[in-house]
Parts: sequence; structure tokens; C-alpha cells
Amino acid sequence: MDISHIEHLGIAVKSIENSLPYYENVLGLKCYNIEEVADQKVKTAFFQVGQTKIELLEPTSEESTIAKFIEKRGEGIHHIAFAVPNVAAALAEVEAKGVQLIDKQPRKGAENLNIAFLHPKSTASVLTELCQQ
Amino acid sequence: MDISHIEHLGIAVKSIENSLPYYENVLGLKCYNIEEVADQKVKTAFFQVGQTKIELLEPTSEESTIAKFIEKRGEGIHHIAFAVPNVAAALAEVEAKGVQLIDKQPRKGAENLNIAFLHPKSTASVLTELCQQ
Repeated sequence: MDISHIEHLGIAVKSIENSLPYYENVLGLKCYNIEEVADQKVKTAFFQVGQTKIELLEPTSEESTIAKFIEKRGEGIHHIAFAVPNVAAALAEVEAKGVQLIDKQPRKGAENLNIAFLHPKSTASVLTELCQQ
Repeated sequence: MDISHIEHLGIAVKSIENSLPYYENVLGLKCYNIEEVADQKVKTAFFQVGQTKIELLEPTSEESTIAKFIEKRGEGIHHIAFAVPNVAAALAEVEAKGVQLIDKQPRKGAENLNIAFLHPKSTASVLTELCQQ
């Protein structure tokens, strides 16, 4: 697979509003976008740090996988997303290597990117997203 | 604070040997260094992904904080490290803003970098390292 960089890190938070002062005032990062991703039942806030974005994920429903993650493990880093030139090709490649997929086909994620998740059972326990820009 | 990029992501694993095939054969990353950090009781393996390194952390003792992390939360992303020009200056700055520090002074980490950890109580629940190159 041809990974160029870490596109973003997803961090599960109970409240973007409560977490923003740490990212902005302590780390000195600037939140450049807040948007809701309805089908994932999350609100997201983005910061750019070099090549990589930090994506805060706040659940908008108790049904959200982010709400369940926080309930089980607490707030913290939820997933890592690698930038690849073509998500569909990368999915085909890793599936042929026996990787279990969460998304069999690319779908639209935050910022309208083509994305797909791999199952942590196949990724050394790290929930992993592939992301095409 | 003047953060240029994410220097590395620390990922807790039970066994570097068992995790390497995923990183090398599935993701296509190349492990360029394996070293033991005796005072942290870990063995580390490094991969470069764009500006950021992935650092696998395998405990070498049950007393290791990584062993305790895995026992409590399972394998997964353990910490995020931001690159700053001067760790001592960054520590003074964030301490003045009320951030609780794990390391009051910079110390030597893997790859002989000056590093210091901030306490997750003050960092929106994400164990955070500052790293000077």
C-alpha cells in the first residue's frame, strides 16, 4: 500500500466545547472547521498540525459508536487514518492479504473525503481508516 | 506553544515480533530501528510515515507502564508526541497555564531526543509528549 502520511487522528471527546480550550489555548492549535457527520452521529472539530489533522469526535447520540467507545474506554485516541492515493485499490489490496474490512467499499466521511475503515482485529488492535484526498 | 508537527504516535503492543507483519506487509511501512529503552522498560520499533513516526512499544517487564496500560485497556494507541523547538520552554509555558506535568524537566527518550510527558488530566484525556529534535 502506498501511504504518504497520517491524514488525521480521531480523538473521542464527550464535549468539543470543553476540549477546545486545551487544543487552542494550551497547544496553540487553531480549530478551522466544526461540522456534523449525521450518518456517524458525531460532531467533528478539526485542527491542522503539520501534515496531519486532529479530528475531535463528539457523539450526538447515545447510539453513536463514539458514545459506546467513550462508555467502554473513556475519552482518548479513537483511530488513525492513513492517506492513500486510492481507497478502493487499497481495500482490494489489503483484503487480498486477509485483512478484515469494516467498509467493503469507500464511503464519504468528514470533509467529503473517500474513506474506509479496517477492522482492528486485523490491524494489531488499532482502529484504522484509509483516506483519499 | 510552537508545534510544528506530530513527531510520533506511541502504540502499545504485547509483541513487536507479532505486530511487525501487519505494519510491514499490510501497510507497507519499513521498520528502520528497534531499540530498548531500559528506564522505561520497553522495547521500541520505529516506522516513518510522512512527517510522523509510529513507535511500537512492547513492555520488557510487568512493571512497565506499557504492561499496565495493556492490562487495563488492551493494545492500542498509547500517546501522541508533538514536535516543539524547545521542550524546557514549552513545559514552562504550559505549566504557567495550569497544565499538570508528569516530567517537570526534559529527559532523554528513545532516539536520544529530549522529551517530557504532560498528564492526561490536563490534556483532554490524551497522554501527551513533547519532543525536541
